[in-house]
Amino acid sequence: MILDLFQKPIRAVNLGSHDFYGDLARQGVPAIDLLWKPAARGDLQLLAALEKLEGRPDIDAANAEALTRINAARPMLVGVGRALDVIPGMTENTLLHAGPPIAWARMSGPLRGAVIGALLFEGRAKTPEEAEALAASGAVAFSPCHEHGAIGPMAGVISPSMPVFILENKDGGNRSYTNMNEGLGKVLRFGAYSEEVLTRLRWMRDILAPALQKAVRGAPDGIDIKSLTAQALHMGDEVHNRNKAATSLLIRALVPLLLEADIGDGERADVIKFINSNDHFFLNLSMASAKAALDSADGIPRCSLVTALSRNGTDFGIRVSGLPGQWFTGPAGEVKGLMFPGFTDADKNPDMGDSAITETLGLGGFSMAAAIAIVQFVGGTPEDAVAFSEKMYRITEGESTMFSIPVLNFRGSPTGIDIRKVVATGILPQINTGIAHRDAGVGQVGAGLVNPPWECFKGAVMALAEE
Amino acid sequence: MILDLFQKPIRAVNLGSHDFYGDLARQGVPAIDLLWKPAARGDLQLLAALEKLEGRPDIDAANAEALTRINAARPMLVGVGRALDVIPGMTENTLLHAGPPIAWARMSGPLRGAVIGALLFEGRAKTPEEAEALAASGAVAFSPCHEHGAIGPMAGVISPSMPVFILENKDGGNRSYTNMNEGLGKVLRFGAYSEEVLTRLRWMRDILAPALQKAVRGAPDGIDIKSLTAQALHMGDEVHNRNKAATSLLIRALVPLLLEADIGDGERADVIKFINSNDHFFLNLSMASAKAALDSADGIPRCSLVTALSRNGTDFGIRVSGLPGQWFTGPAGEVKGLMFPGFTDADKNPDMGDSAITETLGLGGFSMAAAIAIVQFVGGTPEDAVAFSEKMYRITEGESTMFSIPVLNFRGSPTGIDIRKVVATGILPQINTGIAHRDAGVGQVGAGLVNPPWECFKGAVMALAEE
Repeated sequence: MILDLFQKPIRAVNLGSHDFYGDLARQGVPAIDLLWKPAARGDLQLLAALEKLEGRPDIDAANAEALTRINAARPMLVGVGRALDVIPGMTENTLLHAGPPIAWARMSGPLRGAVIGALLFEGRAKTPEEAEALAASGAVAFSPCHEHGAIGPMAGVISPSMPVFILENKDGGNRSYTNMNEGLGKVLRFGAYSEEVLTRLRWMRDILAPALQKAVRGAPDGIDIKSLTAQALHMGDEVHNRNKAATSLLIRALVPLLLEADIGDGERADVIKFINSNDHFFLNLSMASAKAALDSADGIPRCSLVTALSRNGTDFGIRVSGLPGQWFTGPAGEVKGLMFPGFTDADKNPDMGDSAITETLGLGGFSMAAAIAIVQFVGGTPEDAVAFSEKMYRITEGESTMFSIPVLNFRGSPTGIDIRKVVATGILPQINTGIAHRDAGVGQVGAGLVNPPWECFKGAVMALAEE
Repeated sequence: MILDLFQKPIRAVNLGSHDFYGDLARQGVPAIDLLWKPAARGDLQLLAALEKLEGRPDIDAANAEALTRINAARPMLVGVGRALDVIPGMTENTLLHAGPPIAWARMSGPLRGAVIGALLFEGRAKTPEEAEALAASGAVAFSPCHEHGAIGPMAGVISPSMPVFILENKDGGNRSYTNMNEGLGKVLRFGAYSEEVLTRLRWMRDILAPALQKAVRGAPDGIDIKSLTAQALHMGDEVHNRNKAATSLLIRALVPLLLEADIGDGERADVIKFINSNDHFFLNLSMASAKAALDSADGIPRCSLVTALSRNGTDFGIRVSGLPGQWFTGPAGEVKGLMFPGFTDADKNPDMGDSAITETLGLGGFSMAAAIAIVQFVGGTPEDAVAFSEKMYRITEGESTMFSIPVLNFRGSPTGIDIRKVVATGILPQINTGIAHRDAGVGQVGAGLVNPPWECFKGAVMALAEE
């Protein structure tokens, strides 16, 4: 025991720098290390903007309305169509991609690879070199998926003739669209464009999509993706990086429909085998379902809730309900986690993909406490997984009325990220995600945890305060 | 604050009766309620027997050998056959049932109903009255499933012409057998014997079983039930009263085989629909898999580990490795839990079925921490579920090397119930289970928690000490 000048034991509360606490602890002084941080990270200009937005009944009411819409959303898989035919604003010259807007010159390796692959797939180039020249020429209209009601994991490239799932929010009436998951290994979404990749994409267009179209037609009301997600959350999935239960439940929903649909025996078997071989097949539907729910809450005046967290492999961008059509961006971060054998940190591309829409809805990293086995894939401990979920309640408007987390005594998942709370607490949304190789076409090299950059939230708070 | 004669505050440690603690607490006296219980529940004769068995290297070595065999077991679904053809000791006059041996006169309502249904199904009686008279006449050879390598949920009645799954432990070489799950509602295992029940049993015999036989033949090594179970434990199942993930994974394993097998299109669709409609279809396989693992550890001299916990609706019986062929019984208990709407405690049959073989292997109630959502079905809280699993480590020899519990930091499930530890600690195995209506044919009326009676363990310890 350390005594002070008056022979009384020293006891301390440390505030601010963690180092002082370490010094006290080493000397055996009983001390509490208070993890205090100044609001808005001590940025006085930002703090002034934040103060304009806090305690505002109009913003609170807008946020409550947004949460009500998000919770009321009922996204159903209602069909399969060709991107050009069904996605609003899609043209023959458009390539959709993940994340905020980006030009060819600033695209990272895997996104470039996916663009090359898509141009080869569309027959607009005969060789990768031709495709690259075309992409660099400025002739291709690149556009974020998010600006078209669409969404795609990793590179997120959707080209005009690709088949897409069509989801309809039976509450809000809005639709969302997503491409189909190709599986693991060499795939377009990681920037691969070899003949193997293009052959698979053609099979998906010519066999998989028509079969799924016929199957979905057999379900008069569509397939209830929200219900499958809620069940999967009680089965160890968080439907971002664990989709094993949800994919299993989807297969159980699809197989009877596929058996009844007018499909050749061999093709039916191939289709089932393809879906069955990929525990992440559900991911794109999970994302599109989240997109449909969040889009229904977009454009509410004064609303400070986030409607998209998204990355293109170079920039991280967020969208906010009360600031429709705008992106608030910062540099895409480094994902920290577990690397697949044979790869190191030097192989990593920066954070990429539209899949953080799951976190935006309160799933993924926000619901990791529901998916504790995921720590074997993304790193960390079961305690971390629970702590991540618990922390996210501090930056969210409320809780899901449909998705619940058993280990948190069935508490609704933390839903409705409020940019005000993020800036006030300094707590950034917790995302878990796959890691792409920085070179086109190598594929996934790991999985881990990442946060959006602070700049996104700073920019959004400043913009909302200026309105 | 309560003061004593010397004006000093009273502080107390209470030991034994909980009532004294309650009195102190009500008067505001700070007290610790020590949950101390004497070993062997203070039964001096039993304590003397226990002392003969404790600290015995021969018993410890036998138990270690048993745990090694249990962990090494690799039960695979290798076939489907007719009970009469494949189950050892089965005759045309035999009816197998769950739990320890029992005569007609002492059978509970649902077991009697299942016997009547089986005799009708076998064509040995034309009416329920005829069947009842035949069963009561002493002409039918009743025998426990467990004594034939077989196992069945609830009434557990297996008659000669019923189809059964055949599992083979690829490590020990032994086989186990189980009937097929009929689904919910009016079913034989709850003692229903209406025409609807018999029609379903005939369909299972004539359509379901041949289709599954052909499907399983398409898997050269069989279907790995242990692997499916291990995956399901990371997906919110404990494979006793939650089998949703395991059933989903089984469907994913079976569908490709069913598509390849020579089965009519309509029949194939019906078979898939039947399995798909029942989240508990996996239960019987989970049970047979546990049976195969535990049977491989039966009959090890001096071994004090339990190889079966089982109930016939009247008696609870346990079997112990070092006392092969013997049953140690006590009265089947009342299951406490959640009743289905419209039913009350007065409707309950006593605890019934072979399904507690899952707990014997360390699954079911022992692995409830892996299946937290189950508390919505059997009652209790998430904390209870975790506490049950943690408590079971105190009465088990070790941990599973294959089944792990994510929320307990992937600790292996508690495996190998040691009758010495049960008697020494007074902690009884924790079982979760369905509740049957006490009348034949009503079906399941709830689900909840139950323990074996103390007598089973007392009897086994006394017997092992006498050897």
